[in-house]
Amino acid sequence: MTKGLFITFEGGDGAGKTTILNQIYEELTARGIEVIKTREPGGIPISEEIRDIIHNPLHLEMEERTEALLYAAARRQHLVEKVFPALEAGKIVLCDRFVDSSLVYQGYARGIGVDEVYAINKFVIQDCMPDVTLYFDIPPRKGLERITANSDREKNRLDLETLEFHEKVYQGYQLIRSRFSERFQTVDADRPLETVYQDVFKRITALLNK
Amino acid sequence: MTKGLFITFEGGDGAGKTTILNQIYEELTARGIEVIKTREPGGIPISEEIRDIIHNPLHLEMEERTEALLYAAARRQHLVEKVFPALEAGKIVLCDRFVDSSLVYQGYARGIGVDEVYAINKFVIQDCMPDVTLYFDIPPRKGLERITANSDREKNRLDLETLEFHEKVYQGYQLIRSRFSERFQTVDADRPLETVYQDVFKRITALLNK
Repeated sequence: MTKGLFITFEGGDGAGKTTILNQIYEELTARGIEVIKTREPGGIPISEEIRDIIHNPLHLEMEERTEALLYAAARRQHLVEKVFPALEAGKIVLCDRFVDSSLVYQGYARGIGVDEVYAINKFVIQDCMPDVTLYFDIPPRKGLERITANSDREKNRLDLETLEFHEKVYQGYQLIRSRFSERFQTVDADRPLETVYQDVFKRITALLNK
Repeated sequence: MTKGLFITFEGGDGAGKTTILNQIYEELTARGIEVIKTREPGGIPISEEIRDIIHNPLHLEMEERTEALLYAAARRQHLVEKVFPALEAGKIVLCDRFVDSSLVYQGYARGIGVDEVYAINKFVIQDCMPDVTLYFDIPPRKGLERITANSDREKNRLDLETLEFHEKVYQGYQLIRSRFSERFQTVDADRPLETVYQDVFKRITALLNK
């Protein structure tokens, strides 16, 4: 169905994936390659409205499965309006977090169950799984140190989670990357950002030349 | 898990199920039986907000799977906040439309696929399928005649669908009731309302005396 290339960036917090995604996007654009960068909810009005419900601080009663379904709904609309059309137009799509984040954070770390969260995400994605997922591998303690050191970074709710939670997320990613080893590529993110960037750029160039 | 009795009312439009559900509720309450009546979104604030997104007439771009996921999310929160607690307290829950409506309307009539819609609903319901589903069976043409004749009835979007759509819904219900024959009871709704009511009341009394 798709003619483009769908690349997702995954990993624990503080792994540097957003910074590097942005750099890759700039470089590919400068080279005249048709590429878009996105992250959910991706500026899609329906998806933004769904996120507002999820993030409303008054919704203390929101149950974890309701939340997972709302994320899935926002993801679907983002795919339909933004990702599918770009892929069909033959573009490269760089997406900051995608289905694997749901499997890891909600399925594994929050305890709903990976298979259960995967079931609703199959409904969302149908046959459009990422072509390649770049997993930014960094020990959770080091990722947290980076977040703490970076005072420019906007702290979100997940940044305030305990180290224990981040370690659970790390375990979750190990599980998911071995399950989906055919599309996962592991990037050692425990190196200077410039080195990681060069590594990722080389990988993406290889994908484009395939 | 549950100690109560979860009874859902299903069928095409104009089959009389809402009227009869209300009568049953009044009669059981008058007899001192602990019963609640509900329908999605059930007055649950989060579920109402989700419905507002679905029903917003400006959302012409909403895709069918996004819609199905939003219905599922609203259903989950309604279950968690209203249905599960009532069942755990040993009450009878009468629910006007439930999972089978999604399977029939979205899965079958709208064409997403029954199994696909069932997959996300399993995530919603877990082990809490209805104990009994009363299916109000009426030929679609007759159901539509009843709707048209009843000027008090508030017309909704589905009431304006074509006869062809209602016939598809009817076929969908035949499929679903044979698939879930262990919990489906078919009520011949093509009779005077009072006769149908007596029939349903007898069935519910039998369930209570089990």
